[in-house]
Amino acid sequence: MIVILNPDATEAQIQHIVNRASKLGLKSNISRGVERTVIGFIGPEDALRVIPLEVFPGVDQVMQVLAPYKLVSREFKKQDTVIKLKDRVNVGGKKLVVMAGPCSVEGYEPLLSVAKKVKALGATILRGGAFKPRTSPYDFQGLGEEGLKILQRVGRETGLCTISEVMDTRQVDLVARYVDVLQIGARNIQNFALLKEVGLIKKPVMLKRGMSTTVKEWLMSAEYLLSNGNFDVMLCERGIRTFETSTRNTLDVNAVAVAKKLTHLPVVVDPSHGTGHWQYVAAGARAGIAAGCDAIMVEVHDNPEEALSDGAQSLMPDKFQELMVSCRRVAQALDREI
Amino acid sequence: MIVILNPDATEAQIQHIVNRASKLGLKSNISRGVERTVIGFIGPEDALRVIPLEVFPGVDQVMQVLAPYKLVSREFKKQDTVIKLKDRVNVGGKKLVVMAGPCSVEGYEPLLSVAKKVKALGATILRGGAFKPRTSPYDFQGLGEEGLKILQRVGRETGLCTISEVMDTRQVDLVARYVDVLQIGARNIQNFALLKEVGLIKKPVMLKRGMSTTVKEWLMSAEYLLSNGNFDVMLCERGIRTFETSTRNTLDVNAVAVAKKLTHLPVVVDPSHGTGHWQYVAAGARAGIAAGCDAIMVEVHDNPEEALSDGAQSLMPDKFQELMVSCRRVAQALDREI
Amino acid sequence: MIVILNPDATEAQIQHIVNRASKLGLKSNISRGVERTVIGFIGPEDALRVIPLEVFPGVDQVMQVLAPYKLVSREFKKQDTVIKLKDRVNVGGKKLVVMAGPCSVEGYEPLLSVAKKVKALGATILRGGAFKPRTSPYDFQGLGEEGLKILQRVGRETGLCTISEVMDTRQVDLVARYVDVLQIGARNIQNFALLKEVGLIKKPVMLKRGMSTTVKEWLMSAEYLLSNGNFDVMLCERGIRTFETSTRNTLDVNAVAVAKKLTHLPVVVDPSHGTGHWQYVAAGARAGIAAGCDAIMVEVHDNPEEALSDGAQSLMPDKFQELMVSCRRVAQALDREI
Amino acid sequence: MIVILNPDATEAQIQHIVNRASKLGLKSNISRGVERTVIGFIGPEDALRVIPLEVFPGVDQVMQVLAPYKLVSREFKKQDTVIKLKDRVNVGGKKLVVMAGPCSVEGYEPLLSVAKKVKALGATILRGGAFKPRTSPYDFQGLGEEGLKILQRVGRETGLCTISEVMDTRQVDLVARYVDVLQIGARNIQNFALLKEVGLIKKPVMLKRGMSTTVKEWLMSAEYLLSNGNFDVMLCERGIRTFETSTRNTLDVNAVAVAKKLTHLPVVVDPSHGTGHWQYVAAGARAGIAAGCDAIMVEVHDNPEEALSDGAQSLMPDKFQELMVSCRRVAQALDREI
Repeated sequence: MIVILNPDATEAQIQHIVNRASKLGLKSNISRGVERTVIGFIGPEDALRVIPLEVFPGVDQVMQVLAPYKLVSREFKKQDTVIKLKDRVNVGGKKLVVMAGPCSVEGYEPLLSVAKKVKALGATILRGGAFKPRTSPYDFQGLGEEGLKILQRVGRETGLCTISEVMDTRQVDLVARYVDVLQIGARNIQNFALLKEVGLIKKPVMLKRGMSTTVKEWLMSAEYLLSNGNFDVMLCERGIRTFETSTRNTLDVNAVAVAKKLTHLPVVVDPSHGTGHWQYVAAGARAGIAAGCDAIMVEVHDNPEEALSDGAQSLMPDKFQELMVSCRRVAQALDREI
Repeated sequence: MIVILNPDATEAQIQHIVNRASKLGLKSNISRGVERTVIGFIGPEDALRVIPLEVFPGVDQVMQVLAPYKLVSREFKKQDTVIKLKDRVNVGGKKLVVMAGPCSVEGYEPLLSVAKKVKALGATILRGGAFKPRTSPYDFQGLGEEGLKILQRVGRETGLCTISEVMDTRQVDLVARYVDVLQIGARNIQNFALLKEVGLIKKPVMLKRGMSTTVKEWLMSAEYLLSNGNFDVMLCERGIRTFETSTRNTLDVNAVAVAKKLTHLPVVVDPSHGTGHWQYVAAGARAGIAAGCDAIMVEVHDNPEEALSDGAQSLMPDKFQELMVSCRRVAQALDREI
Repeated sequence: MIVILNPDATEAQIQHIVNRASKLGLKSNISRGVERTVIGFIGPEDALRVIPLEVFPGVDQVMQVLAPYKLVSREFKKQDTVIKLKDRVNVGGKKLVVMAGPCSVEGYEPLLSVAKKVKALGATILRGGAFKPRTSPYDFQGLGEEGLKILQRVGRETGLCTISEVMDTRQVDLVARYVDVLQIGARNIQNFALLKEVGLIKKPVMLKRGMSTTVKEWLMSAEYLLSNGNFDVMLCERGIRTFETSTRNTLDVNAVAVAKKLTHLPVVVDPSHGTGHWQYVAAGARAGIAAGCDAIMVEVHDNPEEALSDGAQSLMPDKFQELMVSCRRVAQALDREI
Repeated sequence: MIVILNPDATEAQIQHIVNRASKLGLKSNISRGVERTVIGFIGPEDALRVIPLEVFPGVDQVMQVLAPYKLVSREFKKQDTVIKLKDRVNVGGKKLVVMAGPCSVEGYEPLLSVAKKVKALGATILRGGAFKPRTSPYDFQGLGEEGLKILQRVGRETGLCTISEVMDTRQVDLVARYVDVLQIGARNIQNFALLKEVGLIKKPVMLKRGMSTTVKEWLMSAEYLLSNGNFDVMLCERGIRTFETSTRNTLDVNAVAVAKKLTHLPVVVDPSHGTGHWQYVAAGARAGIAAGCDAIMVEVHDNPEEALSDGAQSLMPDKFQELMVSCRRVAQALDREI
């Protein structure tokens, strides 16, 4: 932690700060420049982080030296985390993982139909929402446990791993019983009660970045999971909210590269939400792979016109096939496989 | 709902759309312009809203005619909602309400001390967090139920109403037992499970706008509360996230004016979070009142240097007094009172 | 300037940085903490600012100690700048200044008509664009010099000062001949060629903040004007671009308070652009005054339905009168006048 | 154009709107729904676009049917524009073009050194700024005409085409004399005087998107160039400004896909500005290619530590070589070449 003082800070003010730090076990290194005096603290920065130094008299700015996250950082663990799911599906290794399926589970038959197709094209994880976060209370809210049962059954019948969203602390055990990976959605990125609860279970989790969450905050939310004991965490970039309205969100490929540098956790890209329009999904998927992600998640529906949610961004199987062909080629160009 | 077709849309594509709408009970009005054909639908728009018309072949753009919210709208209820709390504290009337207190409940003595001071200066609702949403898992997470007990006790002893945040569906009943107003925080603005649960109880709620929530989405989240039966909802603008970094958030006073136009619900402004720096809190409070809000919420602490959270934006009682003096004068200038 | 090193930075890397700084005349203060080493530099920070220390091997982060602006800062000049226009119109003093008029000068008669009305209601500066920045090349681009002549003539006949926008380095002298204040528009906030040229003349300037300009960048653009010799600069907050679409821009009242703290220059608020809808203009004007601005700028038109630009945000004279009544009362509540 | 009326709009108000449109030559199609009346206009929409229908009594919302741009649109010209530079360098064809070089021209020797290296690695256009837009008036502003001369000389000696920025209407002829492509920078995206002037010359132009410019506005700025006669326009995505601070800008790969769909103009991606950190430049370049761009522009410097501008995001030649290898492979995976 570094504190920059106002030009007119007094000795008494400096001493007051030094004393406060000293009580917390930090030594102060005072550097008196021509225009400003700067105090650097040596010792346990975390102790000082909770003190609002900004409001101490004489203080102009406060700067953090250390990142506030620990367990998720590359400094804590150098090598990439690889999350092992059943049937040798690994997220985070050389082989890119493809998650595909409808936005919502709408029934056994339609899910099975899509599942077979995406599997044949190379997907290894089946997605499908049973509890749906909808902006409007009047929109379809998902089939609930019935949807989870269908997802599990189709997963077993096709040999696909499964992923589905958990929205409520009370549903964590329920969802964990049925799926291979729990998803925490963008809207719950800072639902800390949910993060703690999911941190306590033994199931892999995919944590979607919120639509206005910085990379740093995203990693702090992941830190909630790891610090509660769950280390099988994959991050998912799904587009952020910006001023641009020609796409539903702005897919932030920079964040993929930044996250891969700062953390050992695998990074997934969701180009369906990241663009919001089926015409742009393949471009987004390829861009995510080119930026270095470890997996992609794509919404696929046999008949988007009748989809109960997210029809606009769902691909029909033939378009998904095209996406897979070009993504596979891009992956290979970067010495990875799909 | 209005659909604008591509210049090369075919008759078959038009018919396909008309048929789909017809099945849902809507009549289609087709207007063939020189450059584009436009279809307007007459009938229950809600039925059509769930259909992803964007993906129908031949469609260029889809436009909503009606707002997606109902119960919160001025069209549903013309006159302002006034929420009655105990001791004739009304939120939404001519008299502006002031909520003040520390960010977190830190103990009985400190809370009582602040409570007495803010009450003497004109506050009628005491704020204090017992469950705290913190970006870092390593930061102070609040005193929990113990904090609620202290808040209730201090509220009773001082005659102040109380407000505190609920973060988890499992805490709703607990928090509701102790406080007069439940707060749903910015990070839970689209925690739909929580919104439903709070919608089912009989306690006033203050719903904070999320940091990247549009006014429309904010109203849709309020609609979750009303549509589940809870009509005693106040909205709270607390600053949005933008590119600007000189303040923690950007207080959106426009949103106050827009919300007052679109909805009958009272609007609160939180200049503490809206600015994030104690020097700017009074300016933000006055601006909120000048833009037409019905209440303000301000963080006050006897000793911000030792605050366990949000010290940087907390006012000392003497600064809060100055804020109250200038806010009262601005309120009076607009024919309101504090 | 402070440099934080990577945990694995070598002595040779540290020495390399120290040597580089030394060549520029700066002494290095090295502080070796448990987890990180930090170097603080003592001496002329500006010399170091141009060096991309981020790319030096071993460097993790670089932090600025001093603000990059000089002449515009409160540290350079403590007391508020007051800009004197003709007829004892002063911008920056106790008396708030009101600038009003149509978006564009559309002709002598209509301008005179509006000018008389806004003057009668308390405005002292007449606005009117002659060169108009329009998003579309097919939209009305202003009357050019003819518009300036009309503005000057109406200004003289009514005794109002005048303000109009300059968009091109080649127009600076022309515009300066006709008006009392030159306006640099939001889109030209970082048109550095224009800033330099306007910095060289002897006329007051109003510098609008760009729609995605930070306060710091805004002040740096003002620094271009002052460092070229023109100290009669007023800043104008006119709304920033955010994700919110219910208003055209988001009026940033925080920025008013921040600018008043950091700089001695007067601050104007433009609620017409800041909201983009006539219904919200008065709320924005009042909020700006409540946040501490020194002047407001409002678009007024006799017949917005026929306005050649910005009709949606222009007030009719009767609405402008209401605005003036409430703004005057808010100003008085804060011990200022209009 | 479509107008949606308020629920309580009167017949007189409807008639007033219909009459206004009629005077402009548009027929009105009135559709009376259960809840709202909607008017669609048939005829020349451009005539109506300039009328602020939002302020007409009874109007709730106004919707555009047609895009406001014409000449840049795919509807105007279906096939991709290919811009022919000298020596068979074509921007917009199957072969991807690489522009590389230092941020600023700093002298003949250093530029020649870099130019030879980037040419050997596959670049065909040499970049180098002579007039530099700098946030601070105290930073290096470029070598001016001397820089242009050096750029031209090095271009001739190496056989590279050249590109350099023009910042001022008065410099257009000067810059055009020396370079093969003029660049309009992000900060001048809505410097309409400059756009008009560059529209009048016969030289290819690269138009950088502004940091908060929507795709639509970007295309409108390009429309200024085309409508003034210059059709050799390439668009350049260089990152937008968002809330995220871990990168300097957010590279918007979605915008590449959207622009390729809406317009026939070639699209360039600048990952140097798009990320702002040399570690992320290659990821951004690959992502841009994967999303479908036609060219990339990369800052390369022999010694970024001594660069006079943008050192933090400049690649050393060895890193640029790595970038070229991976970009070439990604391009080939998508059936393109470098």
